[in-house]
Amino acid sequence: MSEDPAPEMTAMRDEFIPLKGIHAFDKAHTVMLIEQGIIPKEDGCKILQALSEMEGQGFESVREKTGGGGHSGEAYLIEKLGMEIGGQLHTGRSSADLIGVAVRMEERKRILEILDVITSLRQTLLQLASVHLETVLPAYTHFQQAQPITFAHYLLSWVNGCGRDFDRFLELYGRINASPAGAAIVSGSAFPVNRERVAELLGFDSVLQNTRDAIFGYDPHLELFSKLAILNNSLARFCSDLYIWCSSEFAMIELKDRFCGTSSINPGKKNPQALEQIFSLAASTTGAMNAAFSVDRMPSDAWEIQWRIWSQELWPVLDKTMKGLTLVNNVVASLEVKTKRMGEVARSGWICASDLAVLLVRAEKMPWRVAHHIVAQMVRTCEERGIGSKGVTVDILNAAASALIGRNLSLEQEMIDRALDPLQCVMARQMTGGPAPQAVKRQIEQCVSDSREQATKINRMRQSLARAERNLEDAIQAFLHQPRGEA
Amino acid sequence: MSEDPAPEMTAMRDEFIPLKGIHAFDKAHTVMLIEQGIIPKEDGCKILQALSEMEGQGFESVREKTGGGGHSGEAYLIEKLGMEIGGQLHTGRSSADLIGVAVRMEERKRILEILDVITSLRQTLLQLASVHLETVLPAYTHFQQAQPITFAHYLLSWVNGCGRDFDRFLELYGRINASPAGAAIVSGSAFPVNRERVAELLGFDSVLQNTRDAIFGYDPHLELFSKLAILNNSLARFCSDLYIWCSSEFAMIELKDRFCGTSSINPGKKNPQALEQIFSLAASTTGAMNAAFSVDRMPSDAWEIQWRIWSQELWPVLDKTMKGLTLVNNVVASLEVKTKRMGEVARSGWICASDLAVLLVRAEKMPWRVAHHIVAQMVRTCEERGIGSKGVTVDILNAAASALIGRNLSLEQEMIDRALDPLQCVMARQMTGGPAPQAVKRQIEQCVSDSREQATKINRMRQSLARAERNLEDAIQAFLHQPRGEA
Amino acid sequence: MSEDPAPEMTAMRDEFIPLKGIHAFDKAHTVMLIEQGIIPKEDGCKILQALSEMEGQGFESVREKTGGGGHSGEAYLIEKLGMEIGGQLHTGRSSADLIGVAVRMEERKRILEILDVITSLRQTLLQLASVHLETVLPAYTHFQQAQPITFAHYLLSWVNGCGRDFDRFLELYGRINASPAGAAIVSGSAFPVNRERVAELLGFDSVLQNTRDAIFGYDPHLELFSKLAILNNSLARFCSDLYIWCSSEFAMIELKDRFCGTSSINPGKKNPQALEQIFSLAASTTGAMNAAFSVDRMPSDAWEIQWRIWSQELWPVLDKTMKGLTLVNNVVASLEVKTKRMGEVARSGWICASDLAVLLVRAEKMPWRVAHHIVAQMVRTCEERGIGSKGVTVDILNAAASALIGRNLSLEQEMIDRALDPLQCVMARQMTGGPAPQAVKRQIEQCVSDSREQATKINRMRQSLARAERNLEDAIQAFLHQPRGEA
Amino acid sequence: MSEDPAPEMTAMRDEFIPLKGIHAFDKAHTVMLIEQGIIPKEDGCKILQALSEMEGQGFESVREKTGGGGHSGEAYLIEKLGMEIGGQLHTGRSSADLIGVAVRMEERKRILEILDVITSLRQTLLQLASVHLETVLPAYTHFQQAQPITFAHYLLSWVNGCGRDFDRFLELYGRINASPAGAAIVSGSAFPVNRERVAELLGFDSVLQNTRDAIFGYDPHLELFSKLAILNNSLARFCSDLYIWCSSEFAMIELKDRFCGTSSINPGKKNPQALEQIFSLAASTTGAMNAAFSVDRMPSDAWEIQWRIWSQELWPVLDKTMKGLTLVNNVVASLEVKTKRMGEVARSGWICASDLAVLLVRAEKMPWRVAHHIVAQMVRTCEERGIGSKGVTVDILNAAASALIGRNLSLEQEMIDRALDPLQCVMARQMTGGPAPQAVKRQIEQCVSDSREQATKINRMRQSLARAERNLEDAIQAFLHQPRGEA
Repeated sequence: MSEDPAPEMTAMRDEFIPLKGIHAFDKAHTVMLIEQGIIPKEDGCKILQALSEMEGQGFESVREKTGGGGHSGEAYLIEKLGMEIGGQLHTGRSSADLIGVAVRMEERKRILEILDVITSLRQTLLQLASVHLETVLPAYTHFQQAQPITFAHYLLSWVNGCGRDFDRFLELYGRINASPAGAAIVSGSAFPVNRERVAELLGFDSVLQNTRDAIFGYDPHLELFSKLAILNNSLARFCSDLYIWCSSEFAMIELKDRFCGTSSINPGKKNPQALEQIFSLAASTTGAMNAAFSVDRMPSDAWEIQWRIWSQELWPVLDKTMKGLTLVNNVVASLEVKTKRMGEVARSGWICASDLAVLLVRAEKMPWRVAHHIVAQMVRTCEERGIGSKGVTVDILNAAASALIGRNLSLEQEMIDRALDPLQCVMARQMTGGPAPQAVKRQIEQCVSDSREQATKINRMRQSLARAERNLEDAIQAFLHQPRGEA
Repeated sequence: MSEDPAPEMTAMRDEFIPLKGIHAFDKAHTVMLIEQGIIPKEDGCKILQALSEMEGQGFESVREKTGGGGHSGEAYLIEKLGMEIGGQLHTGRSSADLIGVAVRMEERKRILEILDVITSLRQTLLQLASVHLETVLPAYTHFQQAQPITFAHYLLSWVNGCGRDFDRFLELYGRINASPAGAAIVSGSAFPVNRERVAELLGFDSVLQNTRDAIFGYDPHLELFSKLAILNNSLARFCSDLYIWCSSEFAMIELKDRFCGTSSINPGKKNPQALEQIFSLAASTTGAMNAAFSVDRMPSDAWEIQWRIWSQELWPVLDKTMKGLTLVNNVVASLEVKTKRMGEVARSGWICASDLAVLLVRAEKMPWRVAHHIVAQMVRTCEERGIGSKGVTVDILNAAASALIGRNLSLEQEMIDRALDPLQCVMARQMTGGPAPQAVKRQIEQCVSDSREQATKINRMRQSLARAERNLEDAIQAFLHQPRGEA
Repeated sequence: MSEDPAPEMTAMRDEFIPLKGIHAFDKAHTVMLIEQGIIPKEDGCKILQALSEMEGQGFESVREKTGGGGHSGEAYLIEKLGMEIGGQLHTGRSSADLIGVAVRMEERKRILEILDVITSLRQTLLQLASVHLETVLPAYTHFQQAQPITFAHYLLSWVNGCGRDFDRFLELYGRINASPAGAAIVSGSAFPVNRERVAELLGFDSVLQNTRDAIFGYDPHLELFSKLAILNNSLARFCSDLYIWCSSEFAMIELKDRFCGTSSINPGKKNPQALEQIFSLAASTTGAMNAAFSVDRMPSDAWEIQWRIWSQELWPVLDKTMKGLTLVNNVVASLEVKTKRMGEVARSGWICASDLAVLLVRAEKMPWRVAHHIVAQMVRTCEERGIGSKGVTVDILNAAASALIGRNLSLEQEMIDRALDPLQCVMARQMTGGPAPQAVKRQIEQCVSDSREQATKINRMRQSLARAERNLEDAIQAFLHQPRGEA
Repeated sequence: MSEDPAPEMTAMRDEFIPLKGIHAFDKAHTVMLIEQGIIPKEDGCKILQALSEMEGQGFESVREKTGGGGHSGEAYLIEKLGMEIGGQLHTGRSSADLIGVAVRMEERKRILEILDVITSLRQTLLQLASVHLETVLPAYTHFQQAQPITFAHYLLSWVNGCGRDFDRFLELYGRINASPAGAAIVSGSAFPVNRERVAELLGFDSVLQNTRDAIFGYDPHLELFSKLAILNNSLARFCSDLYIWCSSEFAMIELKDRFCGTSSINPGKKNPQALEQIFSLAASTTGAMNAAFSVDRMPSDAWEIQWRIWSQELWPVLDKTMKGLTLVNNVVASLEVKTKRMGEVARSGWICASDLAVLLVRAEKMPWRVAHHIVAQMVRTCEERGIGSKGVTVDILNAAASALIGRNLSLEQEMIDRALDPLQCVMARQMTGGPAPQAVKRQIEQCVSDSREQATKINRMRQSLARAERNLEDAIQAFLHQPRGEA
């Protein structure tokens, strides 16, 4: 190129190349070049020596000084060791696999962090659940009180959802942690590079099996965006419930002051702003996902634009997601649950109406639908007369029964009261997954056991990465310290 | 409700409830109600008998007559057997698990179909690849000729991408094929329903472990939308390449007439419209995904709106995706590949320039970066003088070398010619995943073997569903035909 | 083309071409061809005669029989009048301007309908507002009670928003109602077609000034999608407020039964489903907008794919938007407003706290920030002691004042009570746009006057279209009935 | 609040509040408070004096030191003048109108800048067009050569599109430049603030007529996002054409080196990366628009989250859009147009086939459709025999005619040659908007005249803002310098 890049063009590129992966790739690539005899061992050792020394001064700041990008290593080596030695580093590589390797190494690190914090959030939810096994509140549908559950049961629903998020990121990890190294720019190179060896030294679980796909196969990255969007949508849904319950009309929970703001005009306000942050997180993640899907549809070979989107959209979204998960975790861990108010709300309406119908089925041997009709009729009558669920009497129920099936029932008041008591209703829901305390306890135990397994999986993945790091260092040290003649 | 629904409200609901799942659930639920003693066996058998008879007349059309939705079975049974018997069907269920079961059964069926057609497309791509191992063309980057590959290598990149799509849908299958049956509306019911038994009879691999999550956990459905969007984005990218290559400027492939349109004004046009359909498919899938993510953010309990989105957005997108995959498959299977033109294009520019640099590294023992500079200098000179890659001579190369390193090289013309011959360049890229015919052959073999495994997995899933269907029928028949006294 | 289109390709095209515009264009184009002498007058008259006769049988059904698309007119004429006459219709046109004209004529019609129904909704909101000038309720911020307003003031905020929607569609109308006729496919034709004449006969306000832009300038259509998305987002926000207020915890409004659903399991439920439909509408509009933006980014010349998106995404969204606006209109017109409960909610918390601070500023001549601090301190004390806003006494306030500014205030209890009375607070907010009944009355009057102007604009646009229709018919009749010799 | 905000919460807020508007509002609000007698004139003058002094030191840096946000003025004044004086600034305002005013003042400034740069781009396009009135190239449809146009005609299509973008932003300007000042948080205040006066002093064209709408009416901001998305989509489409034409297969244009990148592996590459930046711009704008639409659907009163989206998504997108427009402008201004190659491409295929049909209609008095069939038949024959458009002879055409209409035509070779000459074809398209040089000249003249009008409009808007700034300063100076007794 005979001109410097136009300033308005470079100004649009606020790119972040993860230097950690670039640095590791420079080292692993050099080890492989020596082992394959592609570059002379002596030259390779000088390169390895220089790269090691760089670390003493903090390789990131050193690299920032020599351009900061994928080619910062070569620039540094040429500066330090001259063109004859430093000019060999890039043998058999291209910008594309440089960036591909660095992006994937960063992504796998971020995924592991997300897996960690999902695990933490699940534990916090489980802990809170374990003290609210009998805290009754309404389950809502259509924003209307619907059925009796417990707060523990409510929380468990999100624990299960988070479990699927965990699985989704775990599955993706395998697709991300595959090595493009050696694919150069689409077609590899004529040098006999050993892609398996580089992959092993960098902790990749596998080698991408087609060099064009290794560079242009963007789908795992789109998948990362969409899984983040799903996760953050779920977080926003959970926080939306909490947000509503913070209102003075619901008044079922309260957040610590540190998660709230106040008003500059109305001194009586306490605004649960932490939860709004999560709404915003979900929105910006959806936005970033759309940007990624949109740019993915450019001509299939415009790879540089693709990874620049990672740079502009992905890293910020990953950062914010980590903060958001931590924020939700802390909000939940310190949540004030107004159990008494929850119970009052649960008792205020008709959430046990279907349990009364169950009673009719059982005590009166009538079909479900008939029982449902009788109770529906009774509720209508009560509402017209301003009678709440606490005021239901044998007579009122009998009146509805008479109107519909032409006879009175043989229920006693005590049976009706029991059927309309939310705690009793909850106790009766013993089925798999139901809100009865015993059933929820089983769910908690299952989730705790799952969490243990999940932690084991994360550990194994981390150990595998640590092992690769050690192997790379060992390989380098072996070259640097072995007697000259031995090579 | 004292009023009929407002017409403008119902007019907005163009909902499709998959009746197949509703029907199966009605049967499995009844079997379980009998087994658990929740309804009298005699009554239950009448229900089973009536549901079986319905099949003789085509259960779907019968159900359309009784309302068509989730409650069509109950309506039919009440009409046919009276309230006393028919009114028992809905015992321990709600609209929410009815729809949840039906949607998931339909989704799993569709996922299996997509897995099938992805497998077919991979096979078609592999077949075409196997006859183009030596068909050289340029790999493009930034829409510029970049590196020599073969058409087989190009196709293999998409085979690998499709493989990841396959895995993505396979992983999702497990999350979709989990049973919400018995969760009723969020909190289950007080009847001792056996959720495991119903799940088994309906072919679900597992039971969702929290009843609120079973109904309100929408994330697997969002996942389905996003995986379809990823798949269709990839298809569109592939078709975008083909589209460009159909132009008379590229002229490297041609589509059969049946995939093209012409112009009503210009009689000389042949427009590759099949490929445009795929662009449109990707766009509408992205749109549908956004609708789903958007509605997911409504109050977390507005479940009916959620599944209505499946109805309005999901089924059409699934339909179109199947057609799109089939269309791409057929386009590829009948593709006219202009191998000669591809070769000419490959030879027309500088895609082998990096191979010339490799030659310098090897023959002249110079560092990569120096070789790269010499070749870059030489290319600039050639372009200024209007010399193409076919016109490169020893002298021209030496001139560039002299200018940069102060000496001539010792290469012979034949070595240069070889280095600039795309086929030779391709032959040299023997690395894992590279374009050399031998390397591509290995990739093909690997993919064929993967395809076989994939087919086995699909078969196993289908068999498991077939087995469950048989078990359900057996259970029903056992009830219907066992001597009365035996119960 | 030597083959019929592949069935899987045509199956993906569920296209709807608005035949009304095609038919009108066929007529106007023929008139112009005669006037310009491009086709013989005698032949042209036969074409006009045949097109007129078609209307007797319902031109849409006739055209469906001859292919249904843009070329149905030519097919019909060839069938009826033979190739010699019928084959002249398409002179100087192409599929692209055919579809462009038809789409724009349909879009302008739809925009007019939307303008109408926005006007109706504004009137309904204004009517409801006019009876709730003193119905006090809290304005919420962050889902917390914030400030006192009236229901009228609340409704007026949406009336103003709808006014901007009206303006947005009005502005777009001008860009849509511009004629692509005669642009053929991008470059016009060599025949001396008179584009201005055709535009005039079809009621277009102007002629698109570049023939390539006339066909490939999709931005006004994207604008239509995005303006629909903005409108429906606002509707969803309004309905979200109503939805929340329908809950038994808020209980401030109730919908007529015809806009609600119930539960198949819980007989006590009344679910405001009409409002959920509007959430769904907003979601699917956002989805459709994304599909349109996405397909717009295909190669700029793939025009057929563009308009197919109108066909698949635009018309359904326009249909649903009309229904949705009507639904909201009807919901509002029949809304039960629980004024008493609103008043109680308004009095239950601290929405007047800032008015108490205003009192301090005025009566005690203290700076706003000091007054704010005193009230904030007092509210904290009250909340700790379980005292509500109704229990505020001179002593409590003085205690806070003493603690912060070291002295008691000189307020009387009556002044405090007045300051904490929401209706009094509302009365005091007399500023432009404020909630005081007098201020709201002025807003209503302004909006009513704006509505009148808007109606006038719509009328003028409709009259202009009607005039064009008459002119076209007059021109045709003049040709058909003028003595032969006169031409 | 008894706790400091949680760090993970504040960490998620990377908010940017435009301080310029905050500062101006502080001044205008104080002027009004004095004028209305809401605060004592003497105190108000001290505030004005202090705010003026702040400017000497750079008000932005001073404000960063006192918190940086909307309340930085009050904090500064309290620090400097004490609570008694400084504590009066916020009388009758809230955070919401502070931010509303500041955001809208910044948005209007940005819109003016965009209007400017759109105008520049149009001029650059017009200049380039004016030297390419006879530069023939194919118009493409479906990525296939379709019709003959000129490069000037092509460019004019984008000039027209940009004109609509201009109108869209102009229309929006009116909706953005309306004042929320005095709306406080939703309901205004009990102080007799004069909203009209503040609006006038801040250069707003109008006052928002309902205080709730003034704060919660987000639609103009959504409109800004969507209009940016439409603009950037169009830019991307234009750049996509250029991108394709840069390929060596098309080779019709070339970018200056400063807008291109090269390859680290292939020394022969020149990648038009500036154009890819614009693709990326369009993608990230679509993403940001989605984030904005998504967050808009949160509970309608969560206003702080709304404007935070402006902060996180809007300002960056506005920045990038300005850079992108400048980049495109510079690319176009320095574009190398390969007119010779364009002409060759235009001559290489069948783009004049419809002109040959026109010739048949005219010379042979045959209907259009018959002529079209004959030419289509002839093209097919030519393609089978490998004859290009340059090889068409009277005999070949006659053969097709004979086959279809049973007779030879009476054309001479010279007429055929002329009909198939792209330049002649272009010359013939004289209609309004057509590619004939004369027609394009008229389009250029029209656009130049429109541009002049547009510039006048921008000037008028800028003058109005400048006038308001002066009025504000005059009002302040009048207070500060008038003799004490005069007040």
